[in-house]
Amino acid sequence: MARPDKPVNLAEKLEKLEELDAYWTPRTVMEVNGLELKVSRFKGEFVWHSHTEGDELFLVLRGTLTIELRDRDAVRLGPGELFVVPKGVEHRPVTPEGCDVVLLDPEGALNTGDAGGALTRDAEWL
Amino acid sequence: MARPDKPVNLAEKLEKLEELDAYWTPRTVMEVNGLELKVSRFKGEFVWHSHTEGDELFLVLRGTLTIELRDRDAVRLGPGELFVVPKGVEHRPVTPEGCDVVLLDPEGALNTGDAGGALTRDAEWL
Repeated sequence: MARPDKPVNLAEKLEKLEELDAYWTPRTVMEVNGLELKVSRFKGEFVWHSHTEGDELFLVLRGTLTIELRDRDAVRLGPGELFVVPKGVEHRPVTPEGCDVVLLDPEGALNTGDAGGALTRDAEWL
Repeated sequence: MARPDKPVNLAEKLEKLEELDAYWTPRTVMEVNGLELKVSRFKGEFVWHSHTEGDELFLVLRGTLTIELRDRDAVRLGPGELFVVPKGVEHRPVTPEGCDVVLLDPEGALNTGDAGGALTRDAEWL
């Protein structure tokens, strides 16, 4: 899909995502400079993985997200807080209560990175 | 400055920016895949300009922003709404009441793009 040439409302996109009733299923809402901006709903524990394509940005819109990182302390993000997991750094998102997030990844990056497995999803356009 | 290895709180960054009492002065708060994520306060009318380095993303956090575009209708963004001005497309941000925004630009992109002039600012780290 081509980049939208009108404004994207994040709350509306998250409502659509809620109707799909799917966690850990990022959907693309914008493209910028070869990166895909996605929205996703997280709940529970994801898999440990890393991304060979590039860095991954997390911005929390609702709820609390813990990003566990190998070899260093986890980071905890609340609403309006963001963090970048550098390319190649192994990480695991954890959110017992659930959260809504914006992600920014290189085009084509998969949610499970190098780990693959049953939770792997294509980030289709929403 | 190196990329922060801890969470960035956008509200805290905007409070710091408010203390500087400066409009149209983007400050960098994060780096991701060669792009700079910035916060800025806008008020009034900016200059018409375009960016040769790449696309520019606008995400409004507070207030309302109109982005005037050459050869097509302007777009209007409220809180939680985002838009991408493609590389090379001439545009002018306008916000009579003022707004707080997040910007995402290629590293080194200047706020006034190809137009230059008195409003040009380096996006120092905040």
